[in-house]
Amino acid sequence: MTEFPSSHLDLLDAPVASLATIRADGFPHLTEVWFLHDEGELKMSLNDTRLKTRNLMARPQCSLMLLDTAEPDRYLEVRGLARIEPDSDYVFADRLAAKYGGVDLRVIDRPGGRRVVVTIEPVNVYAVDMRWVSAGESAPPA
Amino acid sequence: MTEFPSSHLDLLDAPVASLATIRADGFPHLTEVWFLHDEGELKMSLNDTRLKTRNLMARPQCSLMLLDTAEPDRYLEVRGLARIEPDSDYVFADRLAAKYGGVDLRVIDRPGGRRVVVTIEPVNVYAVDMRWVSAGESAPPA
Repeated sequence: MTEFPSSHLDLLDAPVASLATIRADGFPHLTEVWFLHDEGELKMSLNDTRLKTRNLMARPQCSLMLLDTAEPDRYLEVRGLARIEPDSDYVFADRLAAKYGGVDLRVIDRPGGRRVVVTIEPVNVYAVDMRWVSAGESAPPA
Repeated sequence: MTEFPSSHLDLLDAPVASLATIRADGFPHLTEVWFLHDEGELKMSLNDTRLKTRNLMARPQCSLMLLDTAEPDRYLEVRGLARIEPDSDYVFADRLAAKYGGVDLRVIDRPGGRRVVVTIEPVNVYAVDMRWVSAGESAPPA
């Protein structure tokens, strides 16, 4: 189980996260994703027709940023490897969707696409709080 | 001059953006950054001791996401190459700082570090508005 810093635990329930994946041409690709903090892990429900999912299937290196949208100087960067597992019966998709008002993810999936669970296996967790900069301080609080 | 889509022009004045760079180990690195929409370009003021700056000096491929923090289903992804220029006299740093209440960026710079202007030379601009998913629709509005 990953240790998340106690100062940033609230962000594990944030509504969205920014996911960075690596494109075939070597550029990073950024998207906003829904996610669920589930059994101590950070998981997404993706469709394998999407570029981000195809990037992760080819190159599992990724980074997920959980941002405090009210105080964006404060966030958690979780860098890791994506573990991808099938979710063709939408069991996980429905669990994640419950966090988002029970939206039915089946209706947005394209024909021929497969729903998968993507779990981040963290390599590094980095908690940032730079609010002291906005406040005009020259150093973080002691 | 880059063409930004008219539907997302307000985000060019957003308070923060997420910057993805590529680490030496091939993982993406994500940070929140201050930025300025200046003379039609997206620019950041960074210190060259920081990992994101060192990543960009070695690998200019990057992506900047301008997020509507009030409606995070809506954002602009600007993928591009970083052009890095010196700003040792803080001329650009002070212009950017004016957007953020006039914070003095000199006081947070570490000894030996150099302040630089990083300008994104866009390769692709991708405007996203997925609010129809949260609204339970099965397709975007016509």
